Amino acid sequence: MLSFENDYVEGAHEQILKRLTETNMEQLSGYGTDYYCARAKEKIRAACACPDADIYFLVGGTQTNMTVIDGMLAPYEGVIAAVTGHVSVHEAGAIEYTGHKVLTLPQHIGKIRADELETYLRTFWEDENREHMVYPGMVYISHPTEYGTLYTRTELEHLSSICRAHRIPLYLDGARLGYGLASRETDVTLPVIADCCDAFYIGGTKVGALCGEAVVFTHHNTPKHFLTIIKQHGALLAKGRLLGIQFDTLFTDDLYLKISRRAIEMAESMKQCFREKGCTFHLESPTNQQFLLLKDEELDRLKKQIAVSFWEKPDKDHTIIRFATSWATKETDILRLRKILDETLSSVNQDSPALSP
Amino acid sequence: MLSFENDYVEGAHEQILKRLTETNMEQLSGYGTDYYCARAKEKIRAACACPDADIYFLVGGTQTNMTVIDGMLAPYEGVIAAVTGHVSVHEAGAIEYTGHKVLTLPQHIGKIRADELETYLRTFWEDENREHMVYPGMVYISHPTEYGTLYTRTELEHLSSICRAHRIPLYLDGARLGYGLASRETDVTLPVIADCCDAFYIGGTKVGALCGEAVVFTHHNTPKHFLTIIKQHGALLAKGRLLGIQFDTLFTDDLYLKISRRAIEMAESMKQCFREKGCTFHLESPTNQQFLLLKDEELDRLKKQIAVSFWEKPDKDHTIIRFATSWATKETDILRLRKILDETLSSVNQDSPALSP
Amino acid sequence: MLSFENDYVEGAHEQILKRLTETNMEQLSGYGTDYYCARAKEKIRAACACPDADIYFLVGGTQTNMTVIDGMLAPYEGVIAAVTGHVSVHEAGAIEYTGHKVLTLPQHIGKIRADELETYLRTFWEDENREHMVYPGMVYISHPTEYGTLYTRTELEHLSSICRAHRIPLYLDGARLGYGLASRETDVTLPVIADCCDAFYIGGTKVGALCGEAVVFTHHNTPKHFLTIIKQHGALLAKGRLLGIQFDTLFTDDLYLKISRRAIEMAESMKQCFREKGCTFHLESPTNQQFLLLKDEELDRLKKQIAVSFWEKPDKDHTIIRFATSWATKETDILRLRKILDETLSSVNQDSPALSP
Amino acid sequence: MLSFENDYVEGAHEQILKRLTETNMEQLSGYGTDYYCARAKEKIRAACACPDADIYFLVGGTQTNMTVIDGMLAPYEGVIAAVTGHVSVHEAGAIEYTGHKVLTLPQHIGKIRADELETYLRTFWEDENREHMVYPGMVYISHPTEYGTLYTRTELEHLSSICRAHRIPLYLDGARLGYGLASRETDVTLPVIADCCDAFYIGGTKVGALCGEAVVFTHHNTPKHFLTIIKQHGALLAKGRLLGIQFDTLFTDDLYLKISRRAIEMAESMKQCFREKGCTFHLESPTNQQFLLLKDEELDRLKKQIAVSFWEKPDKDHTIIRFATSWATKETDILRLRKILDETLSSVNQDSPALSP
Repeated sequence: MLSFENDYVEGAHEQILKRLTETNMEQLSGYGTDYYCARAKEKIRAACACPDADIYFLVGGTQTNMTVIDGMLAPYEGVIAAVTGHVSVHEAGAIEYTGHKVLTLPQHIGKIRADELETYLRTFWEDENREHMVYPGMVYISHPTEYGTLYTRTELEHLSSICRAHRIPLYLDGARLGYGLASRETDVTLPVIADCCDAFYIGGTKVGALCGEAVVFTHHNTPKHFLTIIKQHGALLAKGRLLGIQFDTLFTDDLYLKISRRAIEMAESMKQCFREKGCTFHLESPTNQQFLLLKDEELDRLKKQIAVSFWEKPDKDHTIIRFATSWATKETDILRLRKILDETLSSVNQDSPALSP
Repeated sequence: MLSFENDYVEGAHEQILKRLTETNMEQLSGYGTDYYCARAKEKIRAACACPDADIYFLVGGTQTNMTVIDGMLAPYEGVIAAVTGHVSVHEAGAIEYTGHKVLTLPQHIGKIRADELETYLRTFWEDENREHMVYPGMVYISHPTEYGTLYTRTELEHLSSICRAHRIPLYLDGARLGYGLASRETDVTLPVIADCCDAFYIGGTKVGALCGEAVVFTHHNTPKHFLTIIKQHGALLAKGRLLGIQFDTLFTDDLYLKISRRAIEMAESMKQCFREKGCTFHLESPTNQQFLLLKDEELDRLKKQIAVSFWEKPDKDHTIIRFATSWATKETDILRLRKILDETLSSVNQDSPALSP
Repeated sequence: MLSFENDYVEGAHEQILKRLTETNMEQLSGYGTDYYCARAKEKIRAACACPDADIYFLVGGTQTNMTVIDGMLAPYEGVIAAVTGHVSVHEAGAIEYTGHKVLTLPQHIGKIRADELETYLRTFWEDENREHMVYPGMVYISHPTEYGTLYTRTELEHLSSICRAHRIPLYLDGARLGYGLASRETDVTLPVIADCCDAFYIGGTKVGALCGEAVVFTHHNTPKHFLTIIKQHGALLAKGRLLGIQFDTLFTDDLYLKISRRAIEMAESMKQCFREKGCTFHLESPTNQQFLLLKDEELDRLKKQIAVSFWEKPDKDHTIIRFATSWATKETDILRLRKILDETLSSVNQDSPALSP
Repeated sequence: MLSFENDYVEGAHEQILKRLTETNMEQLSGYGTDYYCARAKEKIRAACACPDADIYFLVGGTQTNMTVIDGMLAPYEGVIAAVTGHVSVHEAGAIEYTGHKVLTLPQHIGKIRADELETYLRTFWEDENREHMVYPGMVYISHPTEYGTLYTRTELEHLSSICRAHRIPLYLDGARLGYGLASRETDVTLPVIADCCDAFYIGGTKVGALCGEAVVFTHHNTPKHFLTIIKQHGALLAKGRLLGIQFDTLFTDDLYLKISRRAIEMAESMKQCFREKGCTFHLESPTNQQFLLLKDEELDRLKKQIAVSFWEKPDKDHTIIRFATSWATKETDILRLRKILDETLSSVNQDSPALSP
């Protein structure tokens, strides 16, 4: 069955498997101390135009968020995030498990707003009871967000300047960073991110790797004894090579961006299909995730031929679902999608409720 | 200086100090195994009309909340609370420190609404991604709330029936329970609470004791090895007698309710003063906490003669402050307050913004 | 029944209750910000000859240990303690609950040895796998120890110099500190402790108070935002006056030492009784706790008239038990003890196994 | 440079890379719900002769230990382990990080003894202060141990019966399980382990996989909502296929055992070399890890040509080092080792201290 369920239904980019196979019988030291890890770090530093970056490779996104956030926060601090942020909702309480509160701000198509952040911080510092409260210790954003949306460069710079004024780090979750960088509607590049953020990660799992996320601390600001902290969180991979070789490959000849662009092209074709069919978009997304509002009877028909992701139920007759393309999506997949939509959707979506997230 | 800052500025009810003195040289076994603890428990069971109650004495409110909530939740569960709940805001992240998320519902003058709870729980169980989310494992309410407001018996019963339908416990934070029970506008009694809740605590610190809160598990549903859990949380008092004797005294001859009523009478007199001065109430509270909106220039004058609590700043020229009476407030305190208000407040509060929490 | 079960079976020193009663109706601000807390701190600073000391009052011993240790350690660090240390054995895992390992050294009548500490630290830093291990982040000692024994000034200075060489703090648990300072066989004073340690606490609960321990950070080295950390651990007492007034009283006119001396005198009388009866001491203790090896049949008879504490069972026919005097022990208690021993002990303890802890 | 540093210096068995490549472009659902995971589980159930087994795939060893142990323990419980157990020493305090104490027993060439376990448990339950202590909640053993040694079937059965008598689970860390099963000196098989243990894991990382450990709960005794617990610990792999395909391959045609046997053959050849050279074995190991005592000057020469692992320093002139073979070790590696030993070792090790772990 055709799947647009998410961007991790496929294996890895063929180049990655090729490199894993070629290097397989080399003896390499463990825990990320091997040659390929070192070379991958060098290439990522270059791609970020950030010579002062410290880089660590972890296995997955939630693991990365909990290890980095717990590592950077003081015990009495929490992390500020959008109420829809991955750390707020979809990590099974991993941040709280490490003892820290997620302090939520309203979301605006998945993003937080600089003015609301500013107000939150000012209000906290004016509150005479603040010693009885959780100190805001860092800001978490995702880019692309959980809704596929993107911050503009100006927005990032604004958030960054607020964080710096308050001396708290800005951390960016780049689980799908490739699809953000490759969007047709962005002015945000890796160097911009490295410039604005104190830490971020470049997602591998959803952008061509079997697994792996590259954490970047942008100005030699790695928490002390971070390797031990990684181990303590159960996040230290014995065969670090598995991550090093993958990121070395992804950052050779611009592969990471090239394959991300493919996902964006396919997403644009997909959007075109939806538009032609008169579908109701839940919101405008310039990346690989598209959110549609469907009648439940349409969805039932659709799900017999295409795997998609449940997002939420705005009312009892409709469902918001997510279609995701990836680096591996093929043009024939879009053609098949078009055909299935023809068969399963009602001609016009008339009575859908007006919605914004 | 006169203080309405809170309900814990005074020492203890004189009867309590008398009993502590009388029993002082008795040798009593530690950790709550003494005779006075046993007798206090018996009296609390009777007052609650709840013969199946297990009772434990802890020292303070945040400590009680974190120990009980952590003790009752499974590791993958969080606690549902109003966004203004004490556990959500003013416990320095103690709940998250124990590894659990506080899942927030909107507040309505400090209370949660049954329909919103129902929706939250239904939405969670319908969500196909729920295995990646924090399971709602119990419901926390405070009564009186942080805004001095009270649930009605019907509201409590409604919340209770929803919790039972979803097989999660309902827990009531009664830090100021006496002032709720003694309110002129309530139909909620201790037996009603014991009937509706799976666990609650009767606050001593703010109602006449030097320290101490009595936790009641209403149907022999104490978490296994709870004494060890209390110890593990640093919450086991060596000289348990200090708590036992206090609660034994408070629950002899209805002392707890009697002294609570005094606080309510004083609060009603205080409200009358405010009304006569044309003050703007931030909300209607039927208990011992009163929230007023003052101009900052008035507040500055007032603070020279009366200690009050900062609550929040709704705009740059106004502040919401809290006046609290207690079991120890005297009529002369109210007379002094009236005089000070005469001297410090502008004649009419004209340009105050319309506010509701 | 006569009790030598522990040093917290009695209430408080009468002077403390008197002061609590005298100050009862004063309105005092909460959370340790009142006048009596300030004055008590001043007196403790003077008693310690330590003008740079920061002082905090907490309620109980386990709570103090977990809050201070968690507050001072980095997340990747553990605390070194004797295998018999209170934090190692009798705090229900409270230290581990805060996420930190207790790293154990052998005990020598309850004490750790400087050479073994030195070796431990050296071995750790030589271990090429140390990044996969828990970093030793502080040293915990108790004085008196759990066996009633005392460090000498030279021993303390030696431990201190090792800690300073390794840049880790030395923390002393003084739950029974009064009985150590008042011992006839010590050269350790409060100023010596303040000089050697980076943090310690002066126990109130077991030395005349209803509850309360005074934490001393000796050189303005309080962990950042420690009040919030206290709150987060559920350890912040609303009516801080309860602790301030008690310590203010204990440190007025040398009361703390005076009442401690009484416990030592009574312990010496008790030891004399035991010696005369030919009892087997488990070890030599110069403080208020005495450990005896009894035949189980003797113990059974004894327990009908005296409450004592179980310590351990060295074999199937014998038990080690603890007798504790306190500030409240009376000479008549010792006389009664002597009489009961006459009635219950066999004439000579012949077949007891040779034991050392 | 030749490396016997550990058993994870190589990549993966070629068959695994082949299968990853063959299945690469299949669209497979995430989080372990794919076809290959299901098939791998079926094969593991068969290999264990354990139809009631629940199986989960995690990424690494420390992660598996912390997730399983935390998932199986009640909050007031700790895990019993040898003082040399991996969870006791080399996991950076990951178990304590989850809030649980590691309760240590003496080690005997890496193993715990049934009589000492029995005594520990009996002593705990006889201790009248046990409510103030950490409850022993499960037993952790590793097989092979950290010293390469193995339990006999009788020993396992004995430990198992003690655990069952005390109603606590027995958990076996099988990070190197293949090399235990393939040893020439064992009567322990997978069905024996499944029969004796309540949970165990089959190590993939060190036995031919790129990463991955298969957790087996032997009698449908998986902790409730374990998938959410895995996610909460940051241990849920998005592309579960990476683990499923690897274990499916390892458990097809007995590959896991076959490649493990190769490591044992090479270890036996290696031992022969050492014996011929008169080397001092630190202990007798029947598996792939061999521990030797070398003079530091010999070690310095050796390390120029071979990578080995530091183990410990028994005195200032000697070091214990570990040589590990693996599934990938070749006969030519042993030949090279023999040659290097000839060049670097002194003819006879005469003055080595007598040591046992």
